[in-house]
Amino acid sequence: MKAIALLGGPKSEWPTNLQAHLRQKRADYFLIGVDRGALHLIEMGLVPDICVGDFDSLTEQELSLLESKCAEIRYSTPIKDLTDSELMLQTALIDYQVDSLRIYGATGGRLDHMLVNLFTFLKPEFRQYAEQVELVDRNNTVQYLLPGSHEIADRGSKYFGVAVLSSADKLSITGAKYELAPTDVLVPTVYGSNEFLAQASCQIAFETGLVAIIYSAD
Amino acid sequence: MKAIALLGGPKSEWPTNLQAHLRQKRADYFLIGVDRGALHLIEMGLVPDICVGDFDSLTEQELSLLESKCAEIRYSTPIKDLTDSELMLQTALIDYQVDSLRIYGATGGRLDHMLVNLFTFLKPEFRQYAEQVELVDRNNTVQYLLPGSHEIADRGSKYFGVAVLSSADKLSITGAKYELAPTDVLVPTVYGSNEFLAQASCQIAFETGLVAIIYSAD
Repeated sequence: MKAIALLGGPKSEWPTNLQAHLRQKRADYFLIGVDRGALHLIEMGLVPDICVGDFDSLTEQELSLLESKCAEIRYSTPIKDLTDSELMLQTALIDYQVDSLRIYGATGGRLDHMLVNLFTFLKPEFRQYAEQVELVDRNNTVQYLLPGSHEIADRGSKYFGVAVLSSADKLSITGAKYELAPTDVLVPTVYGSNEFLAQASCQIAFETGLVAIIYSAD
Repeated sequence: MKAIALLGGPKSEWPTNLQAHLRQKRADYFLIGVDRGALHLIEMGLVPDICVGDFDSLTEQELSLLESKCAEIRYSTPIKDLTDSELMLQTALIDYQVDSLRIYGATGGRLDHMLVNLFTFLKPEFRQYAEQVELVDRNNTVQYLLPGSHEIADRGSKYFGVAVLSSADKLSITGAKYELAPTDVLVPTVYGSNEFLAQASCQIAFETGLVAIIYSAD
C-alpha cells in the first residue's frame, strides 16, 4: 500500500499541482492528515483515512469538522516523546505497514519543524524505514539512502545535492558533473548544486550513516 | 563593524519589512550581496559594499548592472572548494573581520542551499565565528552557540527549538517550558516547539558540539 501524508507547513511550499495530484486516483493510496494538514485536506474535498496530531493550532470548530469527517483520529499530547510527524510515521510505517510514504507540507514556515522532519530518520526506531519515504515540496524532493551502492536517476529537476545527515564512511559520487572520490565525512555536510550528465543517472555509495538526496529546481 | 548579507533565496521567505529595515541607518553596517541577492539589493535602491558569487543565474544585462554599481565584486568559480555563501562568510568574517553578521535570503527555494548554510559552521574554518552570525527569515531567527553555558532570551517569537547540528555532550535546557536534563546527544537532533516562561529567558548548556537555537513564529 502506498501512503501520502500532508503536514501543516504553509501552502506556498506545496507543489503547484498538489490538489489535482491528490484528487487523481484517490483510491490508490492511504491518506494521512497531520495537524493543520488534515484540515487542508478536508478543504480540498479529500477525506483523510486517518488524522494525527495535537491539533493545538486548530479552533474548536475546525477540530469538530475534522472529527465529523474522519473515521480515525490519533491525538498526540503536548508533552510527548513523539512529535506529531513522528506519530504519523509510526502510524503509517509501523502500524499500517505501508510500502511507501510521500510527505507534503514538511517545509516552509517553522524551521524547527522542518529539521525535526529531516532528522527523524536518524532515530533508531525510524532509520530502517528511511528508504520508503520521500519529502516533496514546491522546489525539492528528498529521498533517503541507507548504506550501500545506489543508482539515483534524474527526476527532471536541474540540480541534486547529497546531504550527509550525521556522518558517512567512504562516501563517493560517480557519474555526475561533480564527482567525489571515497571520503570519510565526519559531520553533517551537503554536497550541493550537483547535476546529472547525459545518461541521467549516477552512483552514490557509502558504508555507514544516512544520506539524503535532494533533487532541486530553482 | 556590523554586516548584513542578502543571499539569493526567494523573497517570499524574507521578513516582511526587510526593505524598510535595510534602508534605515544604511551607514551603520557593511552590506554584502550574494548572487541574485546582490541584484535584489540594487532593485531596492541599496548599493552593496561588496558582491560575492558565481552569478550564474543572472543574465548578462543583470551582471553588467551589478558591475556598474558595485565597487568590489568577488567571483567564485563553478568548480570550487567554497560555496558562494562560504565565500561570503570568508569575506565578511575573515577578510573584513566584521563583529556580527546577519544573513537574509538563506531559506526557501532550494533545500540543498539552505542546508549548506545551516551546516557551514560545523566546518573547522568557520566554526569559531558561529556565535557572530544569525540567519533571519520571515518566520525564524537562527543563532549558533558554541560549547558553554548560555542564557537565551525571548525575541518575541512564540516558540524556540534547540537543534544539535552534529552531536553534543551533556546538553541541558533549564528554565523553559520543556526542560532537558543533561543528555549526551549522538546524532543531529531537534528539540522543537519549546517556549519561554514568564521570565522570558532560559539556560542552554553543553560541553562539546555545535547547537543552533531557532526562534520561530507560526
